[in-house]
Amino acid sequence: MTPRNPQLNWHGELIHLLSIEGLPREIVTHILDTAAQFVSVGDREVKKVPLLRGKSVFNLFFENSTRTRTTFEIAATRLSADVINLDIGRSSTAKGESLLDTIANLSAMAADLFVVRHGESGAPYLIAQHVAPHVHVVNAGDGRHAHPTQALLDMYTIRHYKRDFSRLTVAIVGDVLHSRVARSDIHALTTLGCPEVRVVGPKTLVPPDLAAMGVRVCHSLEEGLRDCDVVIMLRLQNERMSGALLPSSQEYFKSYGLTPEKLALARPDAIVMHPGPINRGVEIDSAVADGDRSVILPQVTFGIAVRMAVMGIVAGNEA
Amino acid sequence: MTPRNPQLNWHGELIHLLSIEGLPREIVTHILDTAAQFVSVGDREVKKVPLLRGKSVFNLFFENSTRTRTTFEIAATRLSADVINLDIGRSSTAKGESLLDTIANLSAMAADLFVVRHGESGAPYLIAQHVAPHVHVVNAGDGRHAHPTQALLDMYTIRHYKRDFSRLTVAIVGDVLHSRVARSDIHALTTLGCPEVRVVGPKTLVPPDLAAMGVRVCHSLEEGLRDCDVVIMLRLQNERMSGALLPSSQEYFKSYGLTPEKLALARPDAIVMHPGPINRGVEIDSAVADGDRSVILPQVTFGIAVRMAVMGIVAGNEA
Amino acid sequence: MTPRNPQLNWHGELIHLLSIEGLPREIVTHILDTAAQFVSVGDREVKKVPLLRGKSVFNLFFENSTRTRTTFEIAATRLSADVINLDIGRSSTAKGESLLDTIANLSAMAADLFVVRHGESGAPYLIAQHVAPHVHVVNAGDGRHAHPTQALLDMYTIRHYKRDFSRLTVAIVGDVLHSRVARSDIHALTTLGCPEVRVVGPKTLVPPDLAAMGVRVCHSLEEGLRDCDVVIMLRLQNERMSGALLPSSQEYFKSYGLTPEKLALARPDAIVMHPGPINRGVEIDSAVADGDRSVILPQVTFGIAVRMAVMGIVAGNEA
Repeated sequence: MTPRNPQLNWHGELIHLLSIEGLPREIVTHILDTAAQFVSVGDREVKKVPLLRGKSVFNLFFENSTRTRTTFEIAATRLSADVINLDIGRSSTAKGESLLDTIANLSAMAADLFVVRHGESGAPYLIAQHVAPHVHVVNAGDGRHAHPTQALLDMYTIRHYKRDFSRLTVAIVGDVLHSRVARSDIHALTTLGCPEVRVVGPKTLVPPDLAAMGVRVCHSLEEGLRDCDVVIMLRLQNERMSGALLPSSQEYFKSYGLTPEKLALARPDAIVMHPGPINRGVEIDSAVADGDRSVILPQVTFGIAVRMAVMGIVAGNEA
Repeated sequence: MTPRNPQLNWHGELIHLLSIEGLPREIVTHILDTAAQFVSVGDREVKKVPLLRGKSVFNLFFENSTRTRTTFEIAATRLSADVINLDIGRSSTAKGESLLDTIANLSAMAADLFVVRHGESGAPYLIAQHVAPHVHVVNAGDGRHAHPTQALLDMYTIRHYKRDFSRLTVAIVGDVLHSRVARSDIHALTTLGCPEVRVVGPKTLVPPDLAAMGVRVCHSLEEGLRDCDVVIMLRLQNERMSGALLPSSQEYFKSYGLTPEKLALARPDAIVMHPGPINRGVEIDSAVADGDRSVILPQVTFGIAVRMAVMGIVAGNEA
Repeated sequence: MTPRNPQLNWHGELIHLLSIEGLPREIVTHILDTAAQFVSVGDREVKKVPLLRGKSVFNLFFENSTRTRTTFEIAATRLSADVINLDIGRSSTAKGESLLDTIANLSAMAADLFVVRHGESGAPYLIAQHVAPHVHVVNAGDGRHAHPTQALLDMYTIRHYKRDFSRLTVAIVGDVLHSRVARSDIHALTTLGCPEVRVVGPKTLVPPDLAAMGVRVCHSLEEGLRDCDVVIMLRLQNERMSGALLPSSQEYFKSYGLTPEKLALARPDAIVMHPGPINRGVEIDSAVADGDRSVILPQVTFGIAVRMAVMGIVAGNEA
């Protein structure tokens, strides 16, 4: 039995989290179940558990993201780990050292877990292939490829509010083409048995061949939202707005921005999600972002628990 | 009984420290008394108390100040809190996210305490109005408005050396107009019953209407220093020196720089204070800064204890 | 008995680590013996010892070096110390504050240990002369002068693989002239009784007067490597490569780059060391760097233990 999936060991246990694609449903469910136990840690007087005490977690952010780095730092700290933040832009990598030499050096410092954000798709895989057996890798976003912890916290949020995936209709709205969040969410929803996933946006950002991922492509927001249970809004990157792919942010908002009127097409109990940071008045109206259907801030809270669960699980399994 | 003061809860307890203005004298005294208990922690073999164990303190420095941030980081660490330093200039705020969205997101990560330095006056008030009841805000300097922990450590230092405020003459020398330290010190001295506060400097930096704050305005350093017990020198900002408000730093030093000769006009046991970092030869002569009347370094030591006291007190009170 | 050496107290105990030059052999050996006890900490489930619990370690990197700073941060964390990283480039020093004022202020915050990297030779000595008796200084590299913890980890590595220094031939290859690592290694090898130290490189980087340090100067790599037991390759700084001192990196590699063929001239059990980060194809061939004679990654692992030993020893001795 060859473990083709580099995320799993010979016993089928999770040793790295690189992508949702290829993860067995039981593992996704196990992460969500474990996260449920950690959600309450944030409400305690002493917000810590000793699970990773004395372990060294390295935050390797080759691409800057203060927010995501902070969530991992908090999650690791609440597991009692020691966290080292590496400002990679200023480190030896800038002196011409290769990615693998940097990793080999940090591993030799007795690292236990690397949290990796990288601008190039696949970088966390490359790292996972080269680390020593006692070292674990968690992908915190690589290129346009994957953002698995975001997808897991999205699944946690959906499960929290909707209980069951088997009858849900979920719409993912915006720049699906360039979004690692969208890709990971689609894989996660499919894995968990969600029967209908819609991707919604203009043809430049939601090309017809996305249908090959098993989703329904909608170029009209009205069509995409009708009777859906969950709306996942994507952040419109600034570089797209000023580029050739879109006319202007006002035009975009007119067609694809989520307003209370548009949201009325969804089910009355539909929830609205967003990975943040939100662009008010571009992809989402403030009345929706701050409204009673928005679960954007609970997503952030659940995100800490989900990252605690992922780090706790991988660090507990030997390669 | 409506608590108009956003710093206090319905029981009149401190829940945020935003400004000295409006703080009851008992609360100022309570902070100083609590700090006195923490001063000895710095001399211990293990410099820690478990008061904030498992709490998350976020250093939100929208305006860079390594020194002040470091004092809060040390204070929080000695209270056993977990400290997250946010490099705001590089974070989502730079991506166009609003201040309140940033705060809402960080609060959702189960933050307990925000230490906020911001270039705009009032930003910590705005934040305090929008955080959840379990979250506390400490102002680490906002615009030209207030720097309450600096004023509290100044009061601690004065009380340490002079015991009683009721007979003191205190001179604050320099750019009083633009100084949040001066404003906070004036409020603190008035609150603690100091009978004479003098503000000393050229008319461009100490305009006559400052007298409305209940202080005596002096445009001559000699007049300002005569028979005073405490001299608080302010840092002359570089941008003022090269601007239209002042002729040159040499000229300034000639008129308002504190030399041993000028200091001889004060009482023989007068102490000299400065919030740091000092500009030697601009606002203060090295012979004074390093002399036996200088308490500039004890101010730094007391500053850690005062910040421990503030964080410990606010975190212990529910909104 | 006057303790001329500022690194030692009146009992001859180590209170600062500033330079290998002038350190008694027993102290060097004591550091290596202590490090041996810490090497196993990196393999433990909980990688921590409580030796510096509650102590405040300040990383003062006036010259940026993410890698070296990280090794000290990990070492201090594994000793249970609280670590404060100071981004000096952005701090008050940039506002014109003097080095000694910065140090005096940080000392007043009840610092226990300063780890100092500075571009100017001698800066850590200057700091050590001015700190309070309870504060300790460790030099993490100053100008072209010294890098004592690198030399100590190099000695640890050599002792680990070769046991005894008394019969060894060690070749140090590259830009010896500008290298603080080379200077510190030469002093350490001499102190430990190594009978033959060779320095190898072109005349521009290895001038003949280096012989005054008690080493053998070789301008041919073949001559330098013949029958040696240990090869220490130095990193070729980019600024040298583009400068007048060297023709080109290709030319340099042809004459002084370490290839398997060149290494065959050394003893069959010779080890290859490098302080990192390596320039593959400039000073060292990948086949050597990744080969079975390379101990470059063990150096990194031992470096953590050696830094733990140094910090633990100095912090335990009073001035």
